[in-house]
Amino acid sequence: MKERLLTGDRVTGKLHLGHYIGSLKNRVTLQDQYDSFVFLADIQALTTHFEQPDLIRSHAHEIMLDYLAAGINPEHTTLYIQSMIPEIAELTILFSMFVTVNSLRHNPTVKAESKSGSLDEMYYGFLGYPVSQAADITICKATLIPVGEDQLPHLELTRRIVRRFNELYRPIFTEPQALLGESPRLIGTDGEAKMSKSLGNAIHLDSSTEEIRQRIKRAKTDPARIHAHDPGHPDICPIYSYHLAFASVAAAAEIREGCQNGTMGCVACKGQITNVLEQLISPMREQRALYAAKPKLIHDILMSGTERVRGIAQETMKEVRDAMSLNYF
Amino acid sequence: MKERLLTGDRVTGKLHLGHYIGSLKNRVTLQDQYDSFVFLADIQALTTHFEQPDLIRSHAHEIMLDYLAAGINPEHTTLYIQSMIPEIAELTILFSMFVTVNSLRHNPTVKAESKSGSLDEMYYGFLGYPVSQAADITICKATLIPVGEDQLPHLELTRRIVRRFNELYRPIFTEPQALLGESPRLIGTDGEAKMSKSLGNAIHLDSSTEEIRQRIKRAKTDPARIHAHDPGHPDICPIYSYHLAFASVAAAAEIREGCQNGTMGCVACKGQITNVLEQLISPMREQRALYAAKPKLIHDILMSGTERVRGIAQETMKEVRDAMSLNYF
Repeated sequence: MKERLLTGDRVTGKLHLGHYIGSLKNRVTLQDQYDSFVFLADIQALTTHFEQPDLIRSHAHEIMLDYLAAGINPEHTTLYIQSMIPEIAELTILFSMFVTVNSLRHNPTVKAESKSGSLDEMYYGFLGYPVSQAADITICKATLIPVGEDQLPHLELTRRIVRRFNELYRPIFTEPQALLGESPRLIGTDGEAKMSKSLGNAIHLDSSTEEIRQRIKRAKTDPARIHAHDPGHPDICPIYSYHLAFASVAAAAEIREGCQNGTMGCVACKGQITNVLEQLISPMREQRALYAAKPKLIHDILMSGTERVRGIAQETMKEVRDAMSLNYF
Repeated sequence: MKERLLTGDRVTGKLHLGHYIGSLKNRVTLQDQYDSFVFLADIQALTTHFEQPDLIRSHAHEIMLDYLAAGINPEHTTLYIQSMIPEIAELTILFSMFVTVNSLRHNPTVKAESKSGSLDEMYYGFLGYPVSQAADITICKATLIPVGEDQLPHLELTRRIVRRFNELYRPIFTEPQALLGESPRLIGTDGEAKMSKSLGNAIHLDSSTEEIRQRIKRAKTDPARIHAHDPGHPDICPIYSYHLAFASVAAAAEIREGCQNGTMGCVACKGQITNVLEQLISPMREQRALYAAKPKLIHDILMSGTERVRGIAQETMKEVRDAMSLNYF
């Protein structure tokens, strides 16, 4: 039996190159090797976007298209939607009994992602989202979680919750392991540390040829480089980071050399990465259009994945209820 | 259509005279007039007793016997168990998105019931139990909640959650109203402010004649009264408070006078209340024995009530999901 691998995306916007290089590409590679689960985290999206449920709803559809366009194969990956697995809510409530506020507020990701940083002003659901992540993972009995370094504290909390549950009631859960990828964090086109829809510095996976060109054209480069023949500093240039992430090793090395010795100007360099990105995105665009024309197929893929996970979740909750003597009927 | 009235008990121990006079007696009186819901709050019990799930399980059975013995009529009152309504967990998670930690930590009941009072050391589930109470009430669309003064802040939070939900999504909930009873708080036999199983100062509804006698015999009285003929101070005597709560008005007035003028000694006074309590408890004891002999009947009553509430809860969640665009399939 294949090991069960689980990842998901908060449903707060369609996906961009940062998602692709950070996780999606890896999921496509891994999907044959593992029993892969990928879910639309719409309940988690509510922790920050509870005022916009309709936006979440429409993004769920867009992200499904992104997945399929990028090569997620529903024959190999179980795609499902978090809110349609009510057992996750049940398990979250049970886990929350033995997790202290302390262990949640000092979680570095909760700290970083909370705008104000003040515990009092935080929403209760937001404070608890690592508990709900623990339920996401354990309800499916997933044992392998591809994460970036920044997600390790969450996974560690899940492991602690699993140990505590097993100790308090009955050892029914296995501690999940991190599958640490390189998962490079992609710089935004404005040079900000992270490509992000909300910062307006992202290239989306559904970009048109023209949108890619415009976004690259307006992207920041080495600010010290005024004339095309000035020697540049590729290591501080967002465009060079894209060559590193998406071009061949040889091509990126050539760009680096040309930039540093002033023989490759920014316009030419931008033209080259525009082509590379167009070659990456254009097949996705075509696939996306095919799937977008079949909303019934998307619906069926999501429903069938959700049904499979629902079955697993119900089995897990039966074990949980037996272990906690919550099995009255 | 009758208005829907809802109350419940934390499943942390069998019921005693404090529960009877504080709520159970009132529920029996009200059950014909309203569509009455009474639930075993076993999930809420986990917020403080998560290490003892088996204890909760056995208490659930005892409390059912207490209910039926005290006159709760399953034809008029829907009896059910919280943990078997998973929709409560779903709704709790959704409500938790828009409730701040601030509004929970400053809730006087959370403050008072938290042993340490330190937010950091609190369990996340304990901090959130007023959110789960809001879900208990709204999942059944209950509009009338019999409460004591001390529970008003919880109900006010439920009313705020309802208003916020209606405003954010769609007005599907009605703000529940408090049905403020006299609900006197019964003093413990040790003179402590509250009769409580954990303080060992309670007279349980299943007490034997001998247990009642012993508990009253050892109960504290006016400490200034050394000899039977000393004038006593009934207002500071636990025994007098029991006369007030359980004896007739005339009988209690007679006791008061006899105590104050020294004609009624403590032994006689205790003998009299022992008889009053025996008259109250003895029919319950008989009823209890009848029901205790029929575990299948208890099971069926609980299951049938739970099924009814499950149906209502599923309808409510359908409305909630429609309002929040969480209705994918």
